[in-house]
Amino acid sequence: MKIENKLSKLREIMKKENIDGYYINGTDPHNSENVCPRWKTRAFISDFTGSAGSVLVTSDKAYLWVDSRYYIQSDQQTKDSEFIVMKLEKDNTPTPTVFINQMFEKDSRIGFSKDTLMIDEKKQFQKDCKNVEIVVTEDFLNEVWEDRALIPENGVVEMDVNLTGFSRGQKLNMIRIYLGEKKADYAFIASLDDIAWTLSLRGSDIDYTPVFIAYLLVTKEKAYLFTSDKRFDKDLLEKVKKDVEIYPYEEVVSKLGEIIEKDKTLLINEKKVNTLFEKVIKDLNITIVDELEVTTRLKACKNETELDGMRRAHLLDGVAMVNFLATLDFDKGEYSELSLVDKIEVQRLRNKECLGLSFNTISGFKENGAICHYSVSEESSKVVKANGLLVLDSGGCYESGTTDITRTLLFGEASEEEIRDYTLVLKGHIALALQSFPQGTKGHHLDILARQFLWNYGQTYFHGTGHGVGHRLNVHEGPQKISQVVNDYPLQKGMVLSDEPGIYKEGRHGIRIENLIAVQNNVKTEFGQFLNFEILTICPYELRLIDIALLNDIELQYINSYHNWVYEELKDLVDKEALDYLKKATLRITK
Amino acid sequence: MKIENKLSKLREIMKKENIDGYYINGTDPHNSENVCPRWKTRAFISDFTGSAGSVLVTSDKAYLWVDSRYYIQSDQQTKDSEFIVMKLEKDNTPTPTVFINQMFEKDSRIGFSKDTLMIDEKKQFQKDCKNVEIVVTEDFLNEVWEDRALIPENGVVEMDVNLTGFSRGQKLNMIRIYLGEKKADYAFIASLDDIAWTLSLRGSDIDYTPVFIAYLLVTKEKAYLFTSDKRFDKDLLEKVKKDVEIYPYEEVVSKLGEIIEKDKTLLINEKKVNTLFEKVIKDLNITIVDELEVTTRLKACKNETELDGMRRAHLLDGVAMVNFLATLDFDKGEYSELSLVDKIEVQRLRNKECLGLSFNTISGFKENGAICHYSVSEESSKVVKANGLLVLDSGGCYESGTTDITRTLLFGEASEEEIRDYTLVLKGHIALALQSFPQGTKGHHLDILARQFLWNYGQTYFHGTGHGVGHRLNVHEGPQKISQVVNDYPLQKGMVLSDEPGIYKEGRHGIRIENLIAVQNNVKTEFGQFLNFEILTICPYELRLIDIALLNDIELQYINSYHNWVYEELKDLVDKEALDYLKKATLRITK
Repeated sequence: MKIENKLSKLREIMKKENIDGYYINGTDPHNSENVCPRWKTRAFISDFTGSAGSVLVTSDKAYLWVDSRYYIQSDQQTKDSEFIVMKLEKDNTPTPTVFINQMFEKDSRIGFSKDTLMIDEKKQFQKDCKNVEIVVTEDFLNEVWEDRALIPENGVVEMDVNLTGFSRGQKLNMIRIYLGEKKADYAFIASLDDIAWTLSLRGSDIDYTPVFIAYLLVTKEKAYLFTSDKRFDKDLLEKVKKDVEIYPYEEVVSKLGEIIEKDKTLLINEKKVNTLFEKVIKDLNITIVDELEVTTRLKACKNETELDGMRRAHLLDGVAMVNFLATLDFDKGEYSELSLVDKIEVQRLRNKECLGLSFNTISGFKENGAICHYSVSEESSKVVKANGLLVLDSGGCYESGTTDITRTLLFGEASEEEIRDYTLVLKGHIALALQSFPQGTKGHHLDILARQFLWNYGQTYFHGTGHGVGHRLNVHEGPQKISQVVNDYPLQKGMVLSDEPGIYKEGRHGIRIENLIAVQNNVKTEFGQFLNFEILTICPYELRLIDIALLNDIELQYINSYHNWVYEELKDLVDKEALDYLKKATLRITK
Repeated sequence: MKIENKLSKLREIMKKENIDGYYINGTDPHNSENVCPRWKTRAFISDFTGSAGSVLVTSDKAYLWVDSRYYIQSDQQTKDSEFIVMKLEKDNTPTPTVFINQMFEKDSRIGFSKDTLMIDEKKQFQKDCKNVEIVVTEDFLNEVWEDRALIPENGVVEMDVNLTGFSRGQKLNMIRIYLGEKKADYAFIASLDDIAWTLSLRGSDIDYTPVFIAYLLVTKEKAYLFTSDKRFDKDLLEKVKKDVEIYPYEEVVSKLGEIIEKDKTLLINEKKVNTLFEKVIKDLNITIVDELEVTTRLKACKNETELDGMRRAHLLDGVAMVNFLATLDFDKGEYSELSLVDKIEVQRLRNKECLGLSFNTISGFKENGAICHYSVSEESSKVVKANGLLVLDSGGCYESGTTDITRTLLFGEASEEEIRDYTLVLKGHIALALQSFPQGTKGHHLDILARQFLWNYGQTYFHGTGHGVGHRLNVHEGPQKISQVVNDYPLQKGMVLSDEPGIYKEGRHGIRIENLIAVQNNVKTEFGQFLNFEILTICPYELRLIDIALLNDIELQYINSYHNWVYEELKDLVDKEALDYLKKATLRITK
């Protein structure tokens, strides 16, 4: 169906329901970052396929808000439709709430689908848009979207306690201990990766995201999982039922009304729980404690078993990366961005422990590498050959853990500017990796370590330096984060993060270097407990892009000892034909 | 009067007024950091003379809260009284609000003196102490404190526009322009350094703080200053009256009631305006815009004239420091902490442009240097001679600006640990000084630069890295700050800050190195405008405490070029006898 037809159908419904503006936030009922086809509402209504953005449709206009990552892509994808692209952080573009409050007449009715509007988001709109009425509606797209996908019911698998460290029962008990500490009666969890982690189950409802659509209620004695029981094979169903009662996903609201007693206290994260639940909370006179899910904090700090799994996943991933790199002819070879995406995927999948990719591989050559979240397609795929830089950001989901690695590859010869930029990015990447820090340190304290050298050359990058990574789970996981934005959660032992500074020069080249790192205990002194990072990723940097003159002794020593470690870890595991490459790529460098 | 008698008198009044707890925050009606004798209430009631802390007196207990800077001092000063010292950030000590809310019976009445309780502080107590009633009272100490000092009326002087850059009229107009921008009718300013800056006047009501006790109201056409007109000589009074009407300090509340019209909008900073003003605000149905004073932001960004003045003050201060250092015999000399305080003061006051000290000199030898805010007294003053480190933190108030410098001096020989620690502190000090950063960067982003090397050795310091400094005004000035604590105000061109990392090893030694630095424009690139620091302080570091092996080339180059600059700036200005010292202290070092 054409965009104009979709919009016109939507506007008919809006008119019938007396709605002046319909807001589509593009998420699912669990406020997931990635969503399954049923909730790709933003893409359905606007053709814009980016991972973030919001849509507002009025009786005669259609707006799409995007951030700087998607300025170019959104222009391209909306060029034949009536969508007006609102570029945030540019030309004083108002945010959706400011826009809605200013542009609508007083008491206009702005509609939001009840199952994808989070309680917190609703409050935010109500606070910021005092001029208008926030109306929680049915999902109007149901009537517009003829062949809309159903809620998926893909099979789930169990992760053995050998891989998770704690059993399902132990993790449910951790939640119950926390209920006691908080003097609360129930924890209601809507966040999909939290549910998967708690229950040691993994699904495949969403691409690259091994979760399954469900809700979880934990009481002091019991646990209730709301999801289709068709997902389980018979044995697993029996096993899981020992720890949780299972009810259909669609019955969650009515069932909560039966299970939860009046006047009790409920832990929820209002950023992740949608307005479907408001009525039952109100009817039961529930006291809400609105905070980050306790499971999000527990999950963030990987236990020793999970860390061992992450280490194994990174070993296998290093083998795949080096086998891949060794097949490339960087001087005379000719590839395409897409063919390289296929090649690295093939190498990862050679190992049966690799269950798939952890995200859509980014492969951007020359000026495409300067597009920070570039998504290569048949149309955009450039020829890759001498001379130029390729940003290759990829990862695998392994049985034992998740990987995410970026290497910047050099085809042919590099310019002086490219070598200097690579070295500055690498220096920042190293400074963060080597830093020790006292307990209580937060991501926003550390972030500058990765930027300092670029800043001294008048350069910077407009993304965070590090995101949290899940254990055989989402490649983006909170609350840990290293960025300029204030983050309230201190870095703690066991947290896994990326260390990925970069530089993006529009129309010229992009560079990004990314390892995963895990927070570990360092020394304890008269000044308290210090932490530092263990490096998980095992893959050489590009020696031909390093200007040794810009390195100090500590950096030089780090590169040599990292490369020595990479060589020793991989030398007996990579293909025989890859050994020469590995040796050369990890050669000792000196001033 | 003995503490027990004071407390017993206070308790009589509390009983009469039906007050269960009386809270003394130790500030003045303007929430000044330093206060004049009349408002040294904390010291009066408890004998504790530290610069921060709060007191709670109940019918049978007396509590004093202090932070880590004052753990030792507060113990000493309260050891003969009934005061219980509450050490914040230690042993889970509750903050005053938590303590008050938990320890009193429901609906207990907690009293606060109306003229020193800020509106914001009152709201905070009301929010955090829901269990009790917050009662705004008369100042009970008036009846206890027999010889209580009056409000000072010391003379004020005017700073010429040659020194301030902008005239009084221009600065008042800047406020009026801001009133227009904010669609507000009045700005009411209670902050004493803001008033002094706005009016280009300086006073001497508070030690080391060239302000005068006053309030200022700025309307769209007029300005009203509430202070004693006895402060002005005849000519100055005439001159100042062209810009502001002057009324007695005591009449401020009633006069505001006359000047301010009903239903208007008033800018105030509720952190600096006390509860005396609540009634008039309410009676007039005033709309309050509660925010940082616009003058605080204007004042923070020094103009070129002010910066030139700061540079001159630092030149004169460098001369004084080097003349002082040159007189010391670091090998065989014997001094006392106090005698060194006198010696550096004498050197500063030799220059007639030096009007006095900018704060009470800190002179701490060996283990006394490890007490972060050590205040030397006749009793505590240690003999200073070989071997040991002396932390000397001092500054002058010059006609053209304010200085604040710390140098760590070595008497005799240093231990390996002292040399390593000094070098690590210096490396951090240098890293911050040399950093370039994009517009929008905040102090909490930069702070780690000064800590990174210490952290890698399991060491840290428990104070901020940099505070703002005023122009011939307070040596502590906001909103700029470089610390781990989140600060919402980006660093901007013209801001002056200190760069003062340190290390404090209890019972052993302390080290601090401090220069003042000014934010200046650096390059503008495709990534935006970058800023960096100009160094203001002109005084050698201690070469004998530097381990050159720990320095990288950039640090080595910085030290040499800084020392070369120090030498060139000072060589024609210091005493002839000091030239040898200066030459030796600024010698080029190499690996």
